[in-house]
Amino acid sequence: MSKAGGDEGGGGSSSETAQQPEGKTSAGKALSKLNAPTVGPSWTKVSCPCCVSERVEPLVLVKLGEKVRPETKRWLVRVIGAPQKDGGATLLAHPGEDASGDLIVVSAPRCTLLKATEELGLCKTYRNKDMEAFSYNDRDHFKDSDNMEVFLTLAERQYIVRYELDGMRAQKDLRIPGLSDSYILPHRANIWRKLVSAGVIVDTFPLHNPTKLRDLSKAWYSGNQLAQPLDSVNEYFGTPVAFYFSFLDFYTWSLLPPAILGLSITYFSGSTSVEDDSAPAVTGHMIQAIFSMLWSTVFMELWKRRSSTLSYRWGTLTLADRFAEPRPGFHGDIGLNPVTGRMEPLFPDWQRDLRMALVSVPVVGLFLGLVVLGMLCFYWGEAQVQQLHKDWDSLLSLTSLYIPSVLHIVYTNMLGNVYRMVAQSLTEYENHREESAFENHLTAKVLVFTFFNNFAVLFHIAFFKQDVPLLRKRLASLLIVSQLVNQVTEVVIPYLVDRFISAPNRAESEDDPQEDKYRNQSTLPVFPGLFSEYIELLVQFGYLSLFSCVYPLTAVLLLINNVTEIRTDAYKICKLFRKPFYAPVANMGVWQIAFEVLSFVSVVSNCWLLLLSPRLQKLCQEGGMSSTNILLSAVLVEHVLILVKVVLAVLIPDEPDWIRKKRERIEYTSMRALREQKPHQES
Amino acid sequence: MSKAGGDEGGGGSSSETAQQPEGKTSAGKALSKLNAPTVGPSWTKVSCPCCVSERVEPLVLVKLGEKVRPETKRWLVRVIGAPQKDGGATLLAHPGEDASGDLIVVSAPRCTLLKATEELGLCKTYRNKDMEAFSYNDRDHFKDSDNMEVFLTLAERQYIVRYELDGMRAQKDLRIPGLSDSYILPHRANIWRKLVSAGVIVDTFPLHNPTKLRDLSKAWYSGNQLAQPLDSVNEYFGTPVAFYFSFLDFYTWSLLPPAILGLSITYFSGSTSVEDDSAPAVTGHMIQAIFSMLWSTVFMELWKRRSSTLSYRWGTLTLADRFAEPRPGFHGDIGLNPVTGRMEPLFPDWQRDLRMALVSVPVVGLFLGLVVLGMLCFYWGEAQVQQLHKDWDSLLSLTSLYIPSVLHIVYTNMLGNVYRMVAQSLTEYENHREESAFENHLTAKVLVFTFFNNFAVLFHIAFFKQDVPLLRKRLASLLIVSQLVNQVTEVVIPYLVDRFISAPNRAESEDDPQEDKYRNQSTLPVFPGLFSEYIELLVQFGYLSLFSCVYPLTAVLLLINNVTEIRTDAYKICKLFRKPFYAPVANMGVWQIAFEVLSFVSVVSNCWLLLLSPRLQKLCQEGGMSSTNILLSAVLVEHVLILVKVVLAVLIPDEPDWIRKKRERIEYTSMRALREQKPHQES
Repeated sequence: MSKAGGDEGGGGSSSETAQQPEGKTSAGKALSKLNAPTVGPSWTKVSCPCCVSERVEPLVLVKLGEKVRPETKRWLVRVIGAPQKDGGATLLAHPGEDASGDLIVVSAPRCTLLKATEELGLCKTYRNKDMEAFSYNDRDHFKDSDNMEVFLTLAERQYIVRYELDGMRAQKDLRIPGLSDSYILPHRANIWRKLVSAGVIVDTFPLHNPTKLRDLSKAWYSGNQLAQPLDSVNEYFGTPVAFYFSFLDFYTWSLLPPAILGLSITYFSGSTSVEDDSAPAVTGHMIQAIFSMLWSTVFMELWKRRSSTLSYRWGTLTLADRFAEPRPGFHGDIGLNPVTGRMEPLFPDWQRDLRMALVSVPVVGLFLGLVVLGMLCFYWGEAQVQQLHKDWDSLLSLTSLYIPSVLHIVYTNMLGNVYRMVAQSLTEYENHREESAFENHLTAKVLVFTFFNNFAVLFHIAFFKQDVPLLRKRLASLLIVSQLVNQVTEVVIPYLVDRFISAPNRAESEDDPQEDKYRNQSTLPVFPGLFSEYIELLVQFGYLSLFSCVYPLTAVLLLINNVTEIRTDAYKICKLFRKPFYAPVANMGVWQIAFEVLSFVSVVSNCWLLLLSPRLQKLCQEGGMSSTNILLSAVLVEHVLILVKVVLAVLIPDEPDWIRKKRERIEYTSMRALREQKPHQES
Repeated sequence: MSKAGGDEGGGGSSSETAQQPEGKTSAGKALSKLNAPTVGPSWTKVSCPCCVSERVEPLVLVKLGEKVRPETKRWLVRVIGAPQKDGGATLLAHPGEDASGDLIVVSAPRCTLLKATEELGLCKTYRNKDMEAFSYNDRDHFKDSDNMEVFLTLAERQYIVRYELDGMRAQKDLRIPGLSDSYILPHRANIWRKLVSAGVIVDTFPLHNPTKLRDLSKAWYSGNQLAQPLDSVNEYFGTPVAFYFSFLDFYTWSLLPPAILGLSITYFSGSTSVEDDSAPAVTGHMIQAIFSMLWSTVFMELWKRRSSTLSYRWGTLTLADRFAEPRPGFHGDIGLNPVTGRMEPLFPDWQRDLRMALVSVPVVGLFLGLVVLGMLCFYWGEAQVQQLHKDWDSLLSLTSLYIPSVLHIVYTNMLGNVYRMVAQSLTEYENHREESAFENHLTAKVLVFTFFNNFAVLFHIAFFKQDVPLLRKRLASLLIVSQLVNQVTEVVIPYLVDRFISAPNRAESEDDPQEDKYRNQSTLPVFPGLFSEYIELLVQFGYLSLFSCVYPLTAVLLLINNVTEIRTDAYKICKLFRKPFYAPVANMGVWQIAFEVLSFVSVVSNCWLLLLSPRLQKLCQEGGMSSTNILLSAVLVEHVLILVKVVLAVLIPDEPDWIRKKRERIEYTSMRALREQKPHQES
């Protein structure tokens, strides 16, 4: 392979070649050229003349099973290259160094990329500099539409390859060469899923582009930058990752006001506690709590505005996955989609709703119940063991003190693992049509459970034990310990593993054959997804907003943590894992809702905690207020705060004015288009 | 006029002529024919050959001032008939019986109607029986697009005439003939507004169609029908009126479950109060309250679904007043609208927001403060007078007992009248671009005030005096008295006035000249709008949901009231007033929100009232619960109920599945159209 393509150079880095010619000789070499005298295997041919190009950029690596026969591989390469009407993917496939190897490198010709861009509903820069929904018919008026490596981001190109591979469907009953007859593909069956389940395809993942990766990491986490190169992150990893880091960035900066307030309150309350009696009627805790409750709403509303701006900038404002092909796992009776008029599997919504109501909700409830049960058992066991130790007081009873905690941790972990599998199959069973809906429902399920798992104990302390000092102690230790543990398990351990175990086996030199470099990437662990990153932020945000009045320095600790978090997360995704596939998205999806819900729940918990605070209790007793009246005023304050938050959320528009105008402009032009085009189309 | 047109017959009832030829000789005769040998004045000519028609239906009557000179009238008739590019309205005008009379009758040719239908974004039945946004280019594929009197409803045709008249703008600096030079119209000035302010035009109102009106009233309120002819109401009066009556209908039927529950609770609690001690722990009040809280959410969600179905049926699902011409009262610097690309007045949103925040909100707050002040003064005066009477006990002091009430009523009424004017000018000052936005903001202002005015006393009794028996007494008397008073003032008095004062002056016979019949319509009072109807329902709904647990028979009384309300409202709008202009709307607008907000506030008030209920207090004291614990459980119940309501509101989709599919279909086709049409348009 390197023999065939090595002398051509600079295929994978060709988007840089436009800007920095020296990139040409660097890594990421083209596998071979279409129109060069072919020695050994080469890229499949494209049928469309406009797609013939000098260089082909390797985008996605397909790893085959060990026992796959050469004829199966040849067939697969042919199918990938075949046009869509023949059940192919209209992509470019390269069988690797020798035809019997277990790798296939896939790329995409221009027309396939452009058509998929239209189908996905991506916006691109029009000649008048506005972002407009891409139209294949009008492709010549879009900026850079002749140079795919500038027009589409790397993440988009790679996602489109996967989208096309995933979408391949048998056009007639099909026998796969080299496999037994039991693997017959019926008409309209999904080819890729079948091949994966048959063990032909072991892995499909996008290839790293070493030059771009080096530039990105330099701009991202190597120096002391305050700002992140979000556009480059979007270009390299795709919108979901870019949205995560934008949110992390925005959130970290937003922590400044509560951090400053927390610091000054700690400072002043420290000094007033000396004079004691002259303590102000309005305590620092109260200011902190009310501030943080209003802050969280303003923060979320401003983030929504920023999010819609980013979505416009990254061209995902008019995403139309409702109108695109359903996700490969979606099944149902083939029928006419009433919206798009295409033949595709249909699944009635009410049936999905029924499955959610009758299966998913009870099962999730059951697991939440198991969490509570575990917690109750833990407290019961704890009490028993304490009693035992008090009665016997031996070394044995001393060690037995740890048994409940250990059992509880083991139980919680096992439950979490089981739940994750259950959530996955529940969401599969719900049979969502769009990938985004599937992701959102899966995330929501895991999120509720994880959150519950994290906060059950704290809520128990706050609402049942009503023990504010214990809560404060617990919160401080959680904040410090859990952040430390997270950083270690997330980054340090993978780093050490990579450095001392994996890396030596993966030593790379410049002259290694390209194929070996690809093979090396496949030894990296799979990126675990953004779920754990988001849930970490959500739990943080929970500590901050739910119990902020208990421990004013929360924001300060989180601020410090997040500044390092940005860097470690960036390092992690760049260096320690395979490059992940990410579909373009328009926002954070279900996470947005989770943060907002939390921000409203925080009003209830804060008002409750303020009510419990010993100083307030004392003050009121001195002032001669009955406990009923204190409670009444707390309820009143709570209602007013919730009202203020609702009003704030309604009053701050979710998108800036100029985005709204752009969106209305798009709506208006498509309305006009509909009216003008009809008679041509229909008559 | 009747000389010219009388022999032709059946102009005004021409939509019936399609279905029932005998309607031809009935009332509503055409004023004259275009292509008949013209004797006396006639309709203005149309330039477009497709609009030439045998009959012209008189739609709108314009009444001129008494001192308007004949040359001004001639000019006005010419302008109304002139094409839009020359600053006219492209309508048909008829100068009435003689050229110097003070009436102009206006109608609209086919092309003007069709173009306006497209501009307003109305949906009409396509040849495949679906509703689709009307497209002028594709007009031949829409059902009945050759017969305007079937294609558009009467209300739509009349609204379009007003829309075109209101939209006339001077194309160059213009002198109005017959007026002094101070009335010069500058370029782009709104002609109609100027003429109204100059006193040339006194009145513009749509004409009744006697045949249709007779059919409608027969089907609506003359018999013992259970269902209302909502489609005919929509056809005759327009969507806002039809939405009001649909809501009234839906609401009345929805009252059945709480009414039945209320009846059975009254029955059973009546029997248990005899046995007294064995009173169940869960009282009827509680069941009633919790039921009514959940009922109100389910009711509103189901109404939203019904509302979107009606909106689809009546073709207002894709209304686009954002993209149409701004309302005549809208002013601002002339500039390029970034959305539609048309030249029109522009007014920055932030400036409107600023005006609302800095002017409207404080002024509204001030008036609400004045209401509270009035109430406080009333209570203070009441106490003073009671004291006075106790001290002196004379006839004089006895009469003085009534002084505070009288003063309070006078004060409240005056305040209400002043507020209505203030709200009008505030909303004008806010300078909304769309008629619908103007209406919604005006309605919201008046609504908040009226609601506050109605409920301030009740809330005072419930939350400050905490006197449940007084609240119950007050509520029962309000329910009965206010409903009676409303029915009397709204219907009986106008009916008597109409019957004995106005009608004798308006006696009509078949052979009266057509013009006199029109003149008679102008003596009817102007329809006061739907505000008072809606606020009546809202206040009802407030009594029902806010204080339902106090007086369980509320729903029964309201049910009885509403069954008669439907009939009296229908009679009123048909017989006692001029026909009103109504723009097509897609829903109830701000009223929808008002009902939903009320339904959430009701949770707070009901939980509070339950807490106060003497039986619960007694029960808990017997059970040994402290008042703090009772309060805590009430707060808990309240939070759970609000949570359930929010979840219900989220889970019940706002539109039925099939409407969603239709809407998505419209979105999809316009997206496809945009992509396919672009290259033709731009290149």
